[in-house]
Amino acid sequence: MPSLLRDRPASTPEMLAVFGDEALLKAALTFEAQLALAQGELGLIPPADAEAIAAACAQSFDVTELAEAAAHAGTLAIPLVERLRARMAPSEAAARVHKGATSQDLADTALMLQAREGAALIRRDAARLADALAVLAREHRSTPMLGRTLLQAALPITFGLKVSTWLSGVVGALERFERETSAIRLQLGGATGSRAGLDGQGAALAERLAERLDLHPALPWHAERQGLAGLASALAILTGAVGKIAGDVALMAQVEVGEAFEPRQAGRGGSSAMAHKRNPTGCQVALSAAIRAPHLATTIVSALPQQHERGLGGWQAEAPALADLFQLAHGALTAMLVVIKGLEVDAARMGANLAAAQVGTDTGESQALVDQALTAYEKDR
Amino acid sequence: MPSLLRDRPASTPEMLAVFGDEALLKAALTFEAQLALAQGELGLIPPADAEAIAAACAQSFDVTELAEAAAHAGTLAIPLVERLRARMAPSEAAARVHKGATSQDLADTALMLQAREGAALIRRDAARLADALAVLAREHRSTPMLGRTLLQAALPITFGLKVSTWLSGVVGALERFERETSAIRLQLGGATGSRAGLDGQGAALAERLAERLDLHPALPWHAERQGLAGLASALAILTGAVGKIAGDVALMAQVEVGEAFEPRQAGRGGSSAMAHKRNPTGCQVALSAAIRAPHLATTIVSALPQQHERGLGGWQAEAPALADLFQLAHGALTAMLVVIKGLEVDAARMGANLAAAQVGTDTGESQALVDQALTAYEKDR
Amino acid sequence: MPSLLRDRPASTPEMLAVFGDEALLKAALTFEAQLALAQGELGLIPPADAEAIAAACAQSFDVTELAEAAAHAGTLAIPLVERLRARMAPSEAAARVHKGATSQDLADTALMLQAREGAALIRRDAARLADALAVLAREHRSTPMLGRTLLQAALPITFGLKVSTWLSGVVGALERFERETSAIRLQLGGATGSRAGLDGQGAALAERLAERLDLHPALPWHAERQGLAGLASALAILTGAVGKIAGDVALMAQVEVGEAFEPRQAGRGGSSAMAHKRNPTGCQVALSAAIRAPHLATTIVSALPQQHERGLGGWQAEAPALADLFQLAHGALTAMLVVIKGLEVDAARMGANLAAAQVGTDTGESQALVDQALTAYEKDR
Amino acid sequence: MPSLLRDRPASTPEMLAVFGDEALLKAALTFEAQLALAQGELGLIPPADAEAIAAACAQSFDVTELAEAAAHAGTLAIPLVERLRARMAPSEAAARVHKGATSQDLADTALMLQAREGAALIRRDAARLADALAVLAREHRSTPMLGRTLLQAALPITFGLKVSTWLSGVVGALERFERETSAIRLQLGGATGSRAGLDGQGAALAERLAERLDLHPALPWHAERQGLAGLASALAILTGAVGKIAGDVALMAQVEVGEAFEPRQAGRGGSSAMAHKRNPTGCQVALSAAIRAPHLATTIVSALPQQHERGLGGWQAEAPALADLFQLAHGALTAMLVVIKGLEVDAARMGANLAAAQVGTDTGESQALVDQALTAYEKDR
Repeated sequence: MPSLLRDRPASTPEMLAVFGDEALLKAALTFEAQLALAQGELGLIPPADAEAIAAACAQSFDVTELAEAAAHAGTLAIPLVERLRARMAPSEAAARVHKGATSQDLADTALMLQAREGAALIRRDAARLADALAVLAREHRSTPMLGRTLLQAALPITFGLKVSTWLSGVVGALERFERETSAIRLQLGGATGSRAGLDGQGAALAERLAERLDLHPALPWHAERQGLAGLASALAILTGAVGKIAGDVALMAQVEVGEAFEPRQAGRGGSSAMAHKRNPTGCQVALSAAIRAPHLATTIVSALPQQHERGLGGWQAEAPALADLFQLAHGALTAMLVVIKGLEVDAARMGANLAAAQVGTDTGESQALVDQALTAYEKDR
Repeated sequence: MPSLLRDRPASTPEMLAVFGDEALLKAALTFEAQLALAQGELGLIPPADAEAIAAACAQSFDVTELAEAAAHAGTLAIPLVERLRARMAPSEAAARVHKGATSQDLADTALMLQAREGAALIRRDAARLADALAVLAREHRSTPMLGRTLLQAALPITFGLKVSTWLSGVVGALERFERETSAIRLQLGGATGSRAGLDGQGAALAERLAERLDLHPALPWHAERQGLAGLASALAILTGAVGKIAGDVALMAQVEVGEAFEPRQAGRGGSSAMAHKRNPTGCQVALSAAIRAPHLATTIVSALPQQHERGLGGWQAEAPALADLFQLAHGALTAMLVVIKGLEVDAARMGANLAAAQVGTDTGESQALVDQALTAYEKDR
Repeated sequence: MPSLLRDRPASTPEMLAVFGDEALLKAALTFEAQLALAQGELGLIPPADAEAIAAACAQSFDVTELAEAAAHAGTLAIPLVERLRARMAPSEAAARVHKGATSQDLADTALMLQAREGAALIRRDAARLADALAVLAREHRSTPMLGRTLLQAALPITFGLKVSTWLSGVVGALERFERETSAIRLQLGGATGSRAGLDGQGAALAERLAERLDLHPALPWHAERQGLAGLASALAILTGAVGKIAGDVALMAQVEVGEAFEPRQAGRGGSSAMAHKRNPTGCQVALSAAIRAPHLATTIVSALPQQHERGLGGWQAEAPALADLFQLAHGALTAMLVVIKGLEVDAARMGANLAAAQVGTDTGESQALVDQALTAYEKDR
Repeated sequence: MPSLLRDRPASTPEMLAVFGDEALLKAALTFEAQLALAQGELGLIPPADAEAIAAACAQSFDVTELAEAAAHAGTLAIPLVERLRARMAPSEAAARVHKGATSQDLADTALMLQAREGAALIRRDAARLADALAVLAREHRSTPMLGRTLLQAALPITFGLKVSTWLSGVVGALERFERETSAIRLQLGGATGSRAGLDGQGAALAERLAERLDLHPALPWHAERQGLAGLASALAILTGAVGKIAGDVALMAQVEVGEAFEPRQAGRGGSSAMAHKRNPTGCQVALSAAIRAPHLATTIVSALPQQHERGLGGWQAEAPALADLFQLAHGALTAMLVVIKGLEVDAARMGANLAAAQVGTDTGESQALVDQALTAYEKDR
C-alpha cells in the first residue's frame, strides 16, 4: 500500500506511474468517455450527450477525496459516476454516463488499460534482457568455468553455457507472458454480465468500444478469471526466471568465488556501515521480487472460484496483486538488465577456480550447447 | 505423503496410479533402458550391453527398500543404478548403466513420463467436462433465473449464460494447459548439463532418446524450470476454473435456493449424523482441490531461482507438488464431470426465485450471449 | 504499491497513516536521534553531538527525492544518513550519525516502530469486535435458526451459537497476535550483527535504546526472522477469522435466505448499475482481505532461510508484506466491527427457514454452548 | 499423495508412520471405541453395548477398500461406521456406534490424535537440535570467521555467533510450536456443532472423552479453525528456521569457501555421475522442506473462512496439508540434527578466509553475544 519509500526501491518510476492513481483515474475516465462515444455512434445515446460526457471526462478529480468516497461506496465507479454527473448537471446527458455498465466493467477495463501499458514495458525490457544475455553468452561461449551442482563443484562448463540457460529461462517466460497478454481485454457486461439495457446492441457496442480502447473484445468475464490468473502467473514466472540469474550472479560475486560482479555505479551497492562493501544491489532487487511475486500470483489463482455472476471479495483482491506483480517484475527486469549489460566477468578467476577443483578442463560440449541455444534464439526472434 | 485414506478421496484411482510408486519405478527403469538402447544404436556402448541393460531394467525392485536407500543417498538414481549393476554383475555392461547421465536426468525424465500420462487424463476429462457444459448451456439457453452479484440479487439471466461462463473458464484453462504441456520434455544433460562424456554425441543421443521415450527433445533444463512452473500454474488454474463451477452449484443447491443439485448416487453425499442430508460431495472434492492447488503451484514457482547448474533443494521440492497437482486437478475434473452430466436442474424453482426478486424478466441478451459462446466453442473444438 | 484508489478501500486511514511514508521517515529519524542520544548518555559520542544529531533529525526530508535515492543506493539508510550529515556539516558530529549501526538496524527498527503503532490499532479494534460479538451472542442466545453444514440444511441451532463460534475465532486469533507482538523488538547489531564498533558497550546501548524507543530489547535478529514470520502469520490468521464472519453474514444476506444484513449506511453498498441493490460491502472488504492476507504472510515465512549474517533479498521482501498485512487486517476488522454492531437480524426469517427445513426445533444444547462460550470469554477478558 | 519413493526422502519413517493409513485407521477406531465407552460410563448407551462397540473397534479393516468407499461417500466416517455396524450385526448395539457424533468429529479427532504423536516427535527432535546447536556454539564461541552480509564480505564474527543465531531461531520457533499445540484438541460437536442428541450431557461427554483420549477438551471447532492454522504456521516457521541453518551450511560447504561440511556417511551425498562429489544431502532435505512448508501452511490459513456450522471443501483441504507439514518439518529437523552433531568445521579455513578479506580481526563483541545467547538458552531450558 501507498509508500514510495517502501515501493520505489522494488520497482521503476515508469511502472509505478502506470499503476499510480493518476493513471488509474485517467483509465477510468477514458472508459466512461469512450463508452459514451461508442454509444453515441450506435445511437444508444444522443451523440451530443456522448460528446458532453467525453468532455466531462477530460478533467481529473481529487484522488484523495475520491479514494475516500470509493472506500465508503465499496467501489470506485459509484462516486466517480456521481461526480461526473454532478459536473454535467443539470442536463439529461448526465443520466447517460455509465449507461448499461456496471462497476466491475469500469474497474476491470481500467485495470486492463493499465495492464496494457505495463505489458509494453515488460515486453520491451524482457526483450532487452534477452538480447543482453545473448550477447553475453556469445562473448563467453568458450570461457571455462567450474560447473556447480547442489552447491558443490561438479565438472567444467563455459560461462556461456550458464548464460544461455539464463537466456532460455527468460525467453521461455517472456513467450508465456506474451501468450497470456491475451487476457488484457475489454470488460463490458453490465449488471449481471448479460449486456442487458443496451437495446440488444451489446455485442456491437463491445466491439466498437474495444476498438476505441485498443483492447481485445471479449465475452463478459466478470466471474471467469482464468485469463487474469494466467497473466499473473506468467509475471511471477518471469520474475522467477530473472531471480534465477540474480541468484547465480550473487553466488559468483561472493568474495571467495569472485567470478562476476555487478557493474560499479556511483552510490549504488554501498553500505551504511562498511565503506569497503560493494553489495549486489541489482540482484537484491530481483531476488526480493522473486520471493514476493509467486504469492501475489497465488492470490489471484486462489480467488478463481468467484460466486455467481460477479463475486464477493474475489475480484476486489486481484487488482492490488496484479499491480504489484507488474511493478515487481519490471523492477527485477530492469535491475538485472543493468547488471547483465555491465557485468564484470573475471575469466581468470573462473579459470583458477576451475583448476583448483581438479575436475578436468574439457568444455567442447558446453560450447556446442551454447551454439544451439543461440541459434534457436536468433531463429525465434 | 502416503495415505490412501487421505488422498484417494481427493483424486482418482487412475491418476493415483500414474503418480504411484510402481509407475515411478517403471518410468525410471524405462529411462535407463532406453538410454542404453539409444547409446547402443549410436555406438556409444556395445549393442549387446545395451540389450543386457534393457533386460536388467525389465524387472522391478522392492519399492520400500529402494525408497529407504534413496532417502539415504539423497536421490533415487544412486541406489537404482547400483541395484541394476548388481543385477548384471559380473559384466562389463554393468558399468555402462546410466552412462553420461546424472541423477536429475533420471528424476526429471521419469517425472515427465508420468506427467505425460497424467496430461492425457487431464486432457480427456477436461474435454469431456467442456462438452458436457456445452450440452447443458444449450439445453438451458433460455431457462430464466436470477443473476446474482456480490451474493445479492441483481437482474435476470438464463441458466445457459451461467453455464457458458463455466464453459469459457474450462476451455480457456484447458487451452493454457495444452500449451504448457510443451514443458513435458526429455531431460538429458549429464553431470552439469553440458552433455559431457558422450563422445560429442550428446545432441544426437538426446534426439534419439526423446524419440524412443516419445517426449519432446530439449536442451538441458536442470536449473531452468520455468516450463515446469508454467505447467504447474496451468493445473492450478484449471482446478480453479472447475472450483468456480463447484462453488456455484453448491450455492444453488442450498435448501433456500434449491435450483440445482448433484445427481443422486447411492451412498454418495450421505451424512454420518443425519439421514435426510444430501451433501454436494462432488463440489466438495472440487472446492477442496481449488483451495489446495494454487499453493502447490506456488511451491514450484517460488523454487525458480535454483542455484548454478543444478540447485539444492529447489528441484527436489517440485515432484511432490506436481504429482499432487495432477492428482487434485483430475479429482476435481472427474467429480464435476459427474455432477454436470447428471445435474438436476429445477427450472421452476429458478423461475420462482427470479419472480420473487422482482427484478424483471427479460433475458434476450443472455440468450444471445449463450449463442455466441457456443458458436465459439463449436468452432474451436 | 502506491495507489490510494486501490488501497484505501481495503484499509483504514488510520492504518494507512501508520505505514505511510511520513510515518516511516519519522520512525527512521527517531531511530537515528535516539541512537545518538543513547550513545551520548553512555559516552560513546559527545553529548553535544548527540543533541546536534537529534536536532538534525527533528526535521523531515522530501520523500519522493529520498525514495529515489534509496532505490539507487539499495537501502534507505544510506541516503538518509548522507542527508543528515549534510544538514549538520561542517561539524565533527556529522560523522557520528548512525555510529555502529547498519542499514538493517534502521530499516528493522523503523518497521518495528510502525508495527507497534499498528498493533495498538489491531488490538483495540479486535477487542471491540470481540465485545460486539459477545453482545450479539448473548442477545441471540436463544434465537432458533437452521444449522447448515456442507452448505446444506442440517439441524437447529441458535444464532447465538453461530456468533459464539465467530467470537471464539476472533478471541483465539487475537490471543495469538498478542503473543506474537513479542517480535516487535529493537534491532541493533551493526554491520554483521556483532555490535562491533561500540567500545564493548553494545549490550548497554541496546538496552538503553530499547527503553528510549519503548521497544523490547533483543539480541540482533538480522537473519533470525521467525519472530517476524510469527507476527505475519498471526495477522493473516486474524484476518481469516474475521473473513469467516464475513462469509457467513454474506451467505445469510442472500435474498433467498434473508436472515441477516449489514446495517444501512447512506451511500454504502450501492450499485452503479442497479438502484435496488444493497451489497454486503463490509463483508466484501473482509473477504477480500482474507483472500490476500495468507499469501503476504507466506512471503515472509518463505523468506526465512536468509543467508549468513544478513541476507540478500529476503529481508527486503518483508516490510511491504508486513505493512500490507497490518493494513488488510485492520480494514477487515473495522469493516466487520461496523457490520456486527449494526447487524440487522431477521429472527422471524430464521425461524421460517428452520421450519421449512423440517429438521426439528430443539436448541437447548446450543444455548448451553453459548453460555459456556460467553462465560469463558468473560473470564478471560 | 501416496508415493514412498517421492515422500520417504523428505521425511522420516517415524513420522510417515504417524500419518500413515494404519495410524489413521487406528485413530479413527480409537475415537469410536472411546466415544462408546465414555457414553457407557455416562449411561448414554448401555455399558454392555459400549464394550461391544469397543471390541468391534479392536480389529482393523482393509485400507484400500475403505479408502475407495470413503471417496465414494465423501467422508471416512460413513463407510467406517457402516462396517463397524455390520461387524456387530445383528445387535441393538450396532446402531449405537457413532451416537451423537458427526463425520467431522471423527475426522478431526483422528487427525488430532495423529498430530499429538507427531508433535511429540517434533518436540523431541527440535529440542535435540537446539541442544546440539548450543554445544556447537559453545565450542566455537571464539572461532573467528568472516561475517557475510548480502552475500558479501562484511566484518569478523565468530562461528559461535552464527550458530547462536541458528539456535535462537530454532528455540523461538519451537516455543511457538509448543504454544500452538494447544490446538490439538478433542472435536465433539455432533451434526451441527451443538452437541444435540446427547440427552443434554454433551459437555460431560466431551470432558470424559477428552480425558480418555488424552486430548484437551474444547468447545466444538468445526468451522473455527484458527487453532489449526496456528499449528500449521508454527510448523512452517520451524521448518524455515531449520532451513536457514541448512542454507548457511550449504554456503559454507562451497568448494571455494570450504569452512564446514556435513559429516561423512557411507553412501550419503554421493553423485550418480561424479565419484568425487560430496553433496550436502541433509541440507538439501531441509531446504526442500523450507520451500514446500510455507505453502502447505497457507493452504490451511487460506481455508479459514469456512461456511456456517461446517464448511464445504475447506476442512477437507486441511488434513493432507497438516500431515505433509509434520512430515516435512520432521524430515528437516532430523536431517539437520545429524548435520549439526557431526558438522566438520574447518577453523583454519575460516581464519584464512577472514584474513583474505582484510576486514579486521576483533571478535570480542561476538563472543560476548554468544555468551548472552547461551545463558538465555540455559535459563529457559
